[in-house]
Order: sequence, then C-alpha cells, then structure tokens
Amino acid sequence: MLTTHPARSLRCLLAVILLCLAFFATAAWARDESKATNFTLGNGMEVVVIPDHRAPIVTHMVWYKVGSADEPPGKSGIAHFFEHLMFKATSNHEAGEFDAAISAIGGNNNAFTSYDYTCFYEIVPPEALEEMMRFEADRMRNLVLDDRTIATEREVVLEERRSRVDNDPGAVLAEEVNATLWQNQPYRIPVIGWMHEIRQLNRADARAFYDRYYRPNNAILVVAGDVQPEAVRALAEKTYGQLERGPDLPPRVRPVEPEQNTRRTVTLTDARVGVPGFSTHWVVPSYRTAKPGEAEALDLLSEILGGGTRSRLYRELVVKQGIAASAGAGYQGNMLDDTEFSVYGAPRGTATLGEVEKAVGAEVARIAREGVSSEELERAKDRFVRATIFARDRQQAMANIYGSTLAIGGTIADVEQWPERIRGVTTEQVKAVAERYLRPARSTTGYLLPKPAAEN
Amino acid sequence: MLTTHPARSLRCLLAVILLCLAFFATAAWARDESKATNFTLGNGMEVVVIPDHRAPIVTHMVWYKVGSADEPPGKSGIAHFFEHLMFKATSNHEAGEFDAAISAIGGNNNAFTSYDYTCFYEIVPPEALEEMMRFEADRMRNLVLDDRTIATEREVVLEERRSRVDNDPGAVLAEEVNATLWQNQPYRIPVIGWMHEIRQLNRADARAFYDRYYRPNNAILVVAGDVQPEAVRALAEKTYGQLERGPDLPPRVRPVEPEQNTRRTVTLTDARVGVPGFSTHWVVPSYRTAKPGEAEALDLLSEILGGGTRSRLYRELVVKQGIAASAGAGYQGNMLDDTEFSVYGAPRGTATLGEVEKAVGAEVARIAREGVSSEELERAKDRFVRATIFARDRQQAMANIYGSTLAIGGTIADVEQWPERIRGVTTEQVKAVAERYLRPARSTTGYLLPKPAAEN
Repeated sequence: MLTTHPARSLRCLLAVILLCLAFFATAAWARDESKATNFTLGNGMEVVVIPDHRAPIVTHMVWYKVGSADEPPGKSGIAHFFEHLMFKATSNHEAGEFDAAISAIGGNNNAFTSYDYTCFYEIVPPEALEEMMRFEADRMRNLVLDDRTIATEREVVLEERRSRVDNDPGAVLAEEVNATLWQNQPYRIPVIGWMHEIRQLNRADARAFYDRYYRPNNAILVVAGDVQPEAVRALAEKTYGQLERGPDLPPRVRPVEPEQNTRRTVTLTDARVGVPGFSTHWVVPSYRTAKPGEAEALDLLSEILGGGTRSRLYRELVVKQGIAASAGAGYQGNMLDDTEFSVYGAPRGTATLGEVEKAVGAEVARIAREGVSSEELERAKDRFVRATIFARDRQQAMANIYGSTLAIGGTIADVEQWPERIRGVTTEQVKAVAERYLRPARSTTGYLLPKPAAEN
Repeated sequence: MLTTHPARSLRCLLAVILLCLAFFATAAWARDESKATNFTLGNGMEVVVIPDHRAPIVTHMVWYKVGSADEPPGKSGIAHFFEHLMFKATSNHEAGEFDAAISAIGGNNNAFTSYDYTCFYEIVPPEALEEMMRFEADRMRNLVLDDRTIATEREVVLEERRSRVDNDPGAVLAEEVNATLWQNQPYRIPVIGWMHEIRQLNRADARAFYDRYYRPNNAILVVAGDVQPEAVRALAEKTYGQLERGPDLPPRVRPVEPEQNTRRTVTLTDARVGVPGFSTHWVVPSYRTAKPGEAEALDLLSEILGGGTRSRLYRELVVKQGIAASAGAGYQGNMLDDTEFSVYGAPRGTATLGEVEKAVGAEVARIAREGVSSEELERAKDRFVRATIFARDRQQAMANIYGSTLAIGGTIADVEQWPERIRGVTTEQVKAVAERYLRPARSTTGYLLPKPAAEN
C-alpha cells in the first residue's frame, strides 16, 4: 500500500524532475526568499531547506544514498525491500503508528526506490514537522528486523512483483530489454528484484543492508514548505542530530559497461498483448558522467526528437503519416552512472510495427545526419525552461529535484545552474550527440508482439 | 606465450573431456592398476593419482578452485591475470627459472583459465616430479606481486585481448552473445576480462585474489603417469604439505539466472567477415545442477542432433540438402552452475543464412516434437562410450577430466560412473530435455554478417 512500483515511479519521478527543473527559470525562483539553503549536521546528515510560503504545508523527505544498483550480487530487491520494511515496527513504535499519526493530521506519505536512491516522505502541516522528524529518525536506526516481519513482508513484495511485473508482458519485456542493454552495469538488474532472489532475502541480508546504509551520514533531509531554515536546523539537531554517525562508506564506484559492438533485439510474444510496440535503447552518459554540455544536449535531443506532441516523431508519424498510435523519445539524465536514451513507437490502423520502426529509424538517422535548426532548438529550450507544473505538485517536485540530485552526488548549484546550461547548448552539440550515440548497429530493441491464435 | 586463449581453451578442454570420459569404459580402465586414488594432505590440499605405466612420463597439475565466475564485480580478468602472474618471479626463483628447468629436462608446461577453475601443469619424466612440486608449491604462496610486474603483465594481457578478441569479429560477437544469454550468472563475463576492467587491475586486487584463492586448501593436485600413489603422497607431503592452510572459503554460491521469457538476438556486421554464420543458445542445467539423468540426456541430445558428421544436423544440412558449410550442436556439461546448449550453422554456395537457420530450427523442432529412435540413441551412446583418444593425449586428458570434475565439486565416482549413467539414458529422457529447453521463444541467437561494401 505504501509503495510505488519502482520502475514506473522512477520514470514518473524523472518526468516530474524535468518539469521541475524547468520551473527554476520561472519567476518564483528568481525571488531570493525561495532559494534553497543547505547545511550538514554533526553526524554527517545533509539538510536542504526550500522555503515555500504559499500554503501552510511542509514536505519532509529523507533520501538514502542507496538504490538497487548498490545491492550485493545475488541480493536483488533488497533496496526496495526496505521501502517496505521501513513501515514496520521499531523498538519505539508499533507498525502502523507512524501512518496513523500522519492520517490523524490529514497528511500523506509514501516512499520510492530507484537504482540510485531510496526516499521516504510525508506531506503535513508545518506544526507536525518535529513529530515527522522523530518518527523518521527513529526508523532510521531502530527497525525491528525479525524473521517474522521479514517473512511476511517478503510475501508482500513477491506478490507485488507477480502482479506488477510477471502479469504484465510489457513489464516482463522491459526487464529483459534492460538486462540486454546493460551487460555489466547494475542498472541491468530490476529495482524490484528478480523473483528467485527476492525469495531468498533473509534477516541477515536485511540487517547487513540496514546497518550499512540507513545511517545519518548516508542520508539527506529535504524540507520544502512553510518553514524557516533556522527552525528546521534546530528541529533536525534535536531529532536526527541525536543519531550516531555510521562507518564511512566507500565511494559509489560500480562496474561500468564495456563497449557495445552489436545490434541486439529482445522479443516477447504473448497472447495478452493487444497492440504491438517497440522501443530502441542506447547507452549514453548521464548528467553525472557526461562531458560538459553532453547531457544537456541529450535532454534537448530527446525533447526535439520525441518529447511530446510538438516533437519530430509525433508530428511525422502520428500526425502527418498517421501510421503510429504513439511515438516518442526519452532520456533519463539524472542517474549516478551512464544511462539510456530511447525511442519508441506503436502502429495504428493498418500500419505494421515494421513500418513504424522504419519511420522512427529514419527520423533518428535524419537528426544524426542533418542536426536540428536553431529555431527548433530555441523552441525546445523554451519549452523546457518555461514548462510549469501544477501548483499542487510543485512543492513536492522541488523537494524531489533537490533530493535526487544530491542523492547521486550533485549539488544545489547543479540544480540552480541547469536552466543556464540548457540555454547554452548549440545546434552542433545536439547533432554531435545524436551522431555519436544513436547508432543502429549498436542499439538494443525490444519488441512486444501479440501471439496469433494458432500459435503455441 | 604460456597462456591459452581462455574461451577456446575451455571449448577445447571440454571436447577433450568428452572424449576422455568416453575412454573410461574402454578396456584400459577396466584394469584396476589404472584406477585413480585420492587423499587429502593435512593442510586441506586434495590429491588425485592416476597410474599410467605405458611410458616414463608424468603429468603434474595443480587446479585452483577459482575461475572468472568467482571474480569480484568490476574486476573481470583477474583470474586469467594469474595465469600470467604465476610465471613471474617468486621470493625464491627468478621469473623464467621454472620454465627453464622444464625445458632443460625436455618437458613441457602450460596453464589455462576457465569460468570455474585455473590450472597449471607440467609434463615431465617421473624423476622430475619432486622438482615440479617444489616449484609449483613455491609459486602457490611466494609470488612477488610488485607494481612493476603487475603493470608489465597487464600490458601483455591487454595485447592478448586485442589480438584474440577485439581483432576477431567472431570473438567480439561471442562475448556479447554470452552477455545476452546470461543476464545475472557470472558466465556472462568474458574469462579474459573486459578491456576497461583489465586496465584497472592493480597490485591490491592481485594481492587480495592471490591470498584468498592460491592456498593449498583451495587446490587440487592431480598426478597422472608412471608413478605409485604412495610415492606421490610422500613427495606431496614434503612439498605442498609444508604450506600453511589458508582461511576457509565460503561455498561457491553465485548469482543464478532469472527465467528467460524472450527471444533475443545479437548481430555483428563487419567488413572482415567472410562467411556469415549464426548460433542459437539456451540456458540448460549442467552436470552439477541437473536433476538425475538430465545432463546425460543433454549430452546425448547434443551428440544426436549435432555431434559430428553422423549427427542429424550434419547429415540433413551439409550432406543431404547441401545448404550448409557447417552445422552442429554443443553442450558444455562440466560446469559448476547452469550452462548452455547451442546449435550453429553457416551457409554454402547460394544458400542464405536464413535458409540454414530455418533448417536448423526445423531439426530442433523435430527432435523436440518426435524425440529420437532407440537405434539412434544406442548408436550415440556407443559413439560416446567407445570413442578413444590418441595415445599421446590420453594421460593429460585423463588428468584433465579428474581435475576439472573435482574443481567444480564433483568426485572420482562421478567420473567413474559416467559411462554407466550415459548407458541408462532413455529415449523419453532425450525427448524431454529437447522439449523442455530448446524453445525458440526463449533463446539467444548470434548473427555474424559480412558488411556490404556500400554500407557505412
């Protein structure tokens, strides 16, 4: 009940982040009083405060710098397992007490796990902030990890996997495409974990993971809302500040990909599939691994090629040729290690999947060969930088962007300078990344196909 | 100079092993005096002695129960690196002294690395056995692992990788097919290591690996030849027996594969390719992971479907239809974890690769659907069990089969009872494994294609 499907929540979160990043160039962020401030507690816990005085609401988040890509080999799913275990009993509170306290004051809460981090948050009135901090600080160190809790919650996660992955051909395909695109880097492993490995997660695994990663010096507190930084600092010191610093963790250096020399495909044919579809993926740098300007250029390439209804893919395939029900592109830049760029499409009417794939390929080849026009690039920058988000989502989205950026080793300056860096991208840079990375002979394509009735 | 290309040496070794296994049913092995005996030294080192008095020659091998699949994440190539480092200086001998001593007595030596083990061997006159043991015991613990040696030998390995993998499109493809077939199990990682990871191997990595795995209690001594078990025991105690036992190692439990639900392809198009080819691979159990009878059935399935010129694939595609230059099947049963079954083919004359792949697929489908005849099965068993090997290879092959079986946790009884277990396989069992494992929708196929002159 308290969890979000990790793969989807990741994509969803990234969408929010992009929108949110765009927000920073708008008027609200020109005002100094809404600028983020940050400091570190004596035990190493980072704190970010983002004032937002429009309403008496506060978003309180704790980000742990650990995600599925940090799991030991053979222990897939343990990071996401904690997204569940953190809602169980501690030595001070029964399971459910924290939730009940939030419900009683009309707040809401949730948690999500990605490859690079795990986040827990509550949205409550400002006067409840100290209580939230007490609960959150308590579960950072005082979880009761007994065999019974582990066994029960493991069943819940297994059922989550069955219903969200194994019963969904698209999700099954996505996992195997991912593990074909990535052959060394841990992003190949599903965030929720593989069934046979989740089954074997035990108390010793949980204890080791908790003691290693759930420590103040591996956590970031983000508080956005109707609060003052000094008040937040005082509360944080009273609560989180009382926790003992954990052992220093080594740098997050993970195995990286070897060069890809082949074109790879992954095909799932399933009777449950209604409309066929495909997606092609390439390994590309992220904001954390790219040379200066490359990640920004990839973001704009993704926007121009396939970001929404004004993109080349949509206008050409969906609107003009009318052969596609959907077509687009995506770039997940906010990752600790190299990430992926993807394009996708699905046929409409009498068009075949092959026709759609060919047309998408033609647009990819054209943008790599001819680049983009200045006007097109400026319009994409404007869309990026001007995009606004619904007011009700804004506070949480702001907290998300700061939290996720810091959780992968970025800084507040990275967030604040992003619009400026986007503004600086040239047409040459966009062409260069398209040419360098979007090569058909070094790609990974997934096909989701309906099974003809006659086939076995 | 002293190394064998790991992937090829593995295949080669496995072929030798099969032939050798077959040999055990023949007359020579019915004689008790050639039966293997085994015992364990006080420091935990296992010893196997295989008498062979036909000639005054002895094969002396040390097998370490560590291969590339035991490497820490991000350290690919470290196991194979030791195949090189073990020929460098120790605190007692200069680099080259051991080789020179072997040459001086007209012996020969080599080493090879696989996914599951690393082996060093010398073939010498019996009177040199003690000297071999002294040298081999010395380098088990006294290697000088300094920065200069590491740096020099790392360059040698990098060059080996360049010449044997990166300059060979077939080898490049094989690596990526492997990493597409295996998405979790460490067999996905090349034995020689990925270029970018070999480059970073350093003295600390080497020291940790050496101290962990190069210990008497992680090694198996195999002595085959003109020797008596008691004499071998006495020499082994005088030499290896003086080494201190190392810390106990945990069981070799590695990540295993999730279920495969997709059909995967990997295509390499390269101007250097002359004749196109394909191979299709499936994850199947090995002798160590299979239910009783399954591995033996897979061995016979491989023999009937594609083992040489009497196999279905060869007779149908190469001889009868005349469309293939080559066609066959393979099963690598002697592995610690789940392994692979594969089929392959290449076109001849005006036939296309697609026609050959389709014809191979038809034979696979037919054997899964209709099974094999009793006569066909009996003939395959006979071929397996009667096959003999050239006399000059026999002693080393015998040592190989015992060493490799014990190195993956098998026993002498496993080796000795193998012909009997092969004899017991039924036609139903062969059909069952074909039907269960060789499913087109859950396969991984590699394509090696020539690049048309016009293409980029």
